[in-house]
Amino acid sequence: MVILGIDPGLAIVGWGVVDYAGGRFKTLGYGSIQTPAGTRTEERLAMIYKQLNAIIDHFNPAEMAVEELFFTNNITTGIRVAEARGIVLLCGEQKGLKIAEYTPMQVKQAVVGYGKAEKKQVIAMVTNILRLPAPPKPDDTADALAIAVCHGHCGPSRIAQYFNR
Amino acid sequence: MVILGIDPGLAIVGWGVVDYAGGRFKTLGYGSIQTPAGTRTEERLAMIYKQLNAIIDHFNPAEMAVEELFFTNNITTGIRVAEARGIVLLCGEQKGLKIAEYTPMQVKQAVVGYGKAEKKQVIAMVTNILRLPAPPKPDDTADALAIAVCHGHCGPSRIAQYFNR
Repeated sequence: MVILGIDPGLAIVGWGVVDYAGGRFKTLGYGSIQTPAGTRTEERLAMIYKQLNAIIDHFNPAEMAVEELFFTNNITTGIRVAEARGIVLLCGEQKGLKIAEYTPMQVKQAVVGYGKAEKKQVIAMVTNILRLPAPPKPDDTADALAIAVCHGHCGPSRIAQYFNR
Repeated sequence: MVILGIDPGLAIVGWGVVDYAGGRFKTLGYGSIQTPAGTRTEERLAMIYKQLNAIIDHFNPAEMAVEELFFTNNITTGIRVAEARGIVLLCGEQKGLKIAEYTPMQVKQAVVGYGKAEKKQVIAMVTNILRLPAPPKPDDTADALAIAVCHGHCGPSRIAQYFNR
């Protein structure tokens, strides 16, 4: 099953594509969509839409896993992240992907085995699980791969739950 | 100048189209995009994308005015509204509209002349200014028309400011 993991944002959308079969991950590609600061929000959203569609067309994933948002401190930034997240969900839906959402804690639990793990632990584990030559940069890319790994581990039940809700 | 006003939301997107010329408004159309509760978020976002594109194609507005978001109480609802708002901005950008954003207070100030006006005052004034036969329903539609009226009054300077920022 080819899974596209996404860490949404307006400035940076981390993405990672893995194939999970027989309990093993194969990494197909990863990177980040970056939109220039100082560009109008709607222009940045359109860049994300276009580039994410190109990534989906290229890798043809069956499922998408996206990080859920929690706003704590900066609400204004949070609104922009949510707007970008809307674009990500739209792309997935329009391309017919099944979409699952995970909280940061669920991702940490699935990848490190501890829901309150630190970011660098998550990155180290992802690098190890996916047998990557080096930790992916920026962190958003590593996060996206972590979400994809999380979905590989808990996906089937989550998707079933999601579509039956 | 044909203006599309939008009050964004996931369940209801209010919209209203006015032509503002020579200090007078002509109302071209208004209504709401409603997405069924219990439908997956991404499906609802795709419905909004499709229907809003159809509205833009039909009325061919030059500019779009969208309400800015402020989260106060319900953050979870706020995230979904922001995701829907991202879709609205994307549609506008892809169709080449100039986009301006207004706070609820700016809209009230422009329509009623008082930034802390009550919702029913705004609706009454919009109904009056646009010479509508009755207050538009739901309130989201009236709000969208209020945003369009606000943009008619303060648009040119706002757009200039926006594109020069």
